[in-house]
Amino acid sequence: MEHPDCPLCRDIGGLSVASAERWRVIRAVEPDFPAFYRVIWTDHVAEFSDLPPADRDAIMAVVVAVEQTLRRALSPTKINLATLGNVVPHLHWHVIARFDWDSHFPNPVWGERRRTLTGTETAEARLAVPLPELDALVREAVRALA
Amino acid sequence: MEHPDCPLCRDIGGLSVASAERWRVIRAVEPDFPAFYRVIWTDHVAEFSDLPPADRDAIMAVVVAVEQTLRRALSPTKINLATLGNVVPHLHWHVIARFDWDSHFPNPVWGERRRTLTGTETAEARLAVPLPELDALVREAVRALA
Repeated sequence: MEHPDCPLCRDIGGLSVASAERWRVIRAVEPDFPAFYRVIWTDHVAEFSDLPPADRDAIMAVVVAVEQTLRRALSPTKINLATLGNVVPHLHWHVIARFDWDSHFPNPVWGERRRTLTGTETAEARLAVPLPELDALVREAVRALA
Repeated sequence: MEHPDCPLCRDIGGLSVASAERWRVIRAVEPDFPAFYRVIWTDHVAEFSDLPPADRDAIMAVVVAVEQTLRRALSPTKINLATLGNVVPHLHWHVIARFDWDSHFPNPVWGERRRTLTGTETAEARLAVPLPELDALVREAVRALA
């Protein structure tokens, strides 16, 4: 099921947070959106509907666990979920905590920048919880689903 | 559960395709992306994880039925799924058929335009199936889930 040219078959695709046989959770390194996680399916399938129902339930349960963790830890203005895969057609869900102060809000992270953060505080420093602690909370939340 | 200021509580939000008690399917009027559907939850909830598990399963079943219909009818290059809600925080899923020839591909529909279609054919005219027929196929696919 591996595609030699697929970056998500070849590489982990971010900072490893948790992994199970069928999926892994990574944190993307996106300075504008520090609380940006991805749930990546292990097998190379392109579309959500390529998965049988039980596997769809499995990956969505992980997505929801990440979402709930971000909501509890960070009280974001909004959670954004998406699976696009136009560039890398290997099933992965973006789970992104958005804040009304972030660089692009209310635009999608793929849209136009709306502001530049002023002052010395980075986006990461504005989070209610430091990223290593957030990663640990996410890891703990998805552990039961592995 | 209605919010008077919420456009998705007040209006249908697009061209009506199908509806059930808990959700409705509309087609967005987006000339660059003619096969762009939304599955809108009836109650005003902001986040996917605000729904109890049975309701999450219900809305994802509708999303998948729309996705499968678009794949079968149009053979798109990719399906894009997203629930953002930064502007309208009332739960709705975007289900979008993307084509390697479309105005933004491989960028997200919210990203930068990559090309202008040349010739007299609109994006809609390039679809393998006319939109009224596509709407009927979507309606038929989700009927069993109502």
